[in-house]
Amino acid sequence: MKQIFITNDDGIEAQGIQTLALLMSRIGEVTVVAPDSARSGAACSITPTRPVEVAEWKGRYHAPDGVAMPEPGPFPIHYYTCSGTPVDCVKIAYEHVLTCKPDLMVSGINHGDNASCSVHYSGTMGAVIEGCLKGWQSIGFSLRTLKKTANFEPFFESIVNISEYIINHPLPIDQCINVNYPEVDKLAGTKVTRMARGEWSGEWADAKNPHGKRVFWLTGHFTNLEPEDRSTDCWALENGYASVTPIQLDVTAYDTLQMLKYLEE
Amino acid sequence: MKQIFITNDDGIEAQGIQTLALLMSRIGEVTVVAPDSARSGAACSITPTRPVEVAEWKGRYHAPDGVAMPEPGPFPIHYYTCSGTPVDCVKIAYEHVLTCKPDLMVSGINHGDNASCSVHYSGTMGAVIEGCLKGWQSIGFSLRTLKKTANFEPFFESIVNISEYIINHPLPIDQCINVNYPEVDKLAGTKVTRMARGEWSGEWADAKNPHGKRVFWLTGHFTNLEPEDRSTDCWALENGYASVTPIQLDVTAYDTLQMLKYLEE
Repeated sequence: MKQIFITNDDGIEAQGIQTLALLMSRIGEVTVVAPDSARSGAACSITPTRPVEVAEWKGRYHAPDGVAMPEPGPFPIHYYTCSGTPVDCVKIAYEHVLTCKPDLMVSGINHGDNASCSVHYSGTMGAVIEGCLKGWQSIGFSLRTLKKTANFEPFFESIVNISEYIINHPLPIDQCINVNYPEVDKLAGTKVTRMARGEWSGEWADAKNPHGKRVFWLTGHFTNLEPEDRSTDCWALENGYASVTPIQLDVTAYDTLQMLKYLEE
Repeated sequence: MKQIFITNDDGIEAQGIQTLALLMSRIGEVTVVAPDSARSGAACSITPTRPVEVAEWKGRYHAPDGVAMPEPGPFPIHYYTCSGTPVDCVKIAYEHVLTCKPDLMVSGINHGDNASCSVHYSGTMGAVIEGCLKGWQSIGFSLRTLKKTANFEPFFESIVNISEYIINHPLPIDQCINVNYPEVDKLAGTKVTRMARGEWSGEWADAKNPHGKRVFWLTGHFTNLEPEDRSTDCWALENGYASVTPIQLDVTAYDTLQMLKYLEE
């Protein structure tokens, strides 16, 4: 029986992870270790300064009215929560929850996309990078939406297909996958893409707290800096395609090693 | 007059950032916006769910007994604290503190190295990546040490030299620098390196909280998975060299795009 590990950054009670768990139970036995509440923007952060707890989740998910949850598959799902970050969830699953190496780890489905530079801030992708560091085949799934209640149904088949494909065609060492979906009723198709150059601007909303003190809330607008380039994750999303981007752990800029050699003298 | 922006993840009162600010005041006018307390392991995390504050820092740093702080240069230093993460510090400096684009951003000096896969967890390097996303020349400085009181003196000259070199020889777009120092009295030299493959293991220390509940503290041992390879950051550190690694924002695994094309069908 295939073993699937699942986590996310929106927390155990998010519609996205509950959907993903049901879909993965069609492929194999599922173990979920997810944050006990939302950890958006957690990136690859870890918790070095306070203790972390892990516990069986005894809750029960109630889908919002009108939401189509997938039919579960034949395999069992085990749910745990962790008081740490998404990366902590992976690390504690690795040492204290899982009894063998999973055939696949999936993270998400995130409510909000993780295309372009957002991959660096994403807790969903932080967990995927950690799974990859552990030597697991790892995929992050995200939906470009701002809605709390999302319609994931148009992507059920794609999520299962991509997951099965990666189980059967493992990625090269130290690589993982970032999958983003556009908010559509029917996908135009799937594009294998590279990460677009992009930037966030207007990132702080000025406010006053109840004591009259000036505070700032993080917000902002994303701009795709290569809007004409059809090879990017952003172009795929803007044109109704699922975007599949292979991601590597090694961030060395090899082309620049030579330029810096002067510093060795 | 050159403009230098500084942040870190150990907080405004850390010996590392106070040292770095004095060194940078030899090069130009310095603006520090640092977390108000330690944010180790913050990676590229951001603060989307609560307001963030920024304030002038009116404190005064007292170096530990026996610590040699660098002689400051002729240029002023302005200190601010921020209640957010290292990346938040960069974002709020960009929009609400700095009045022009800095000629250089430096992060650190971190107490603990950020070589190999630790770059993914590092708040020091998270801030550097954010500075790079803002289009700034950005460098992270870290020292491989576990001591709270560190001897940064052997690296004063190297830190100033590398900073001036990058100001005068800007990096290619979307690239930044990760500098790590070994804990030595005298550097063997400087190596331009790539990121080693490495892994953390034994990451959780089992404990009980005062109420008898089982909890886990993050800890662990790092292993360099390529110990014989002389081209890596870890090899440089293990052999007494400063390590200078160019880092890129684009994490696309280009070699794997073709392998995944099947998913487009």
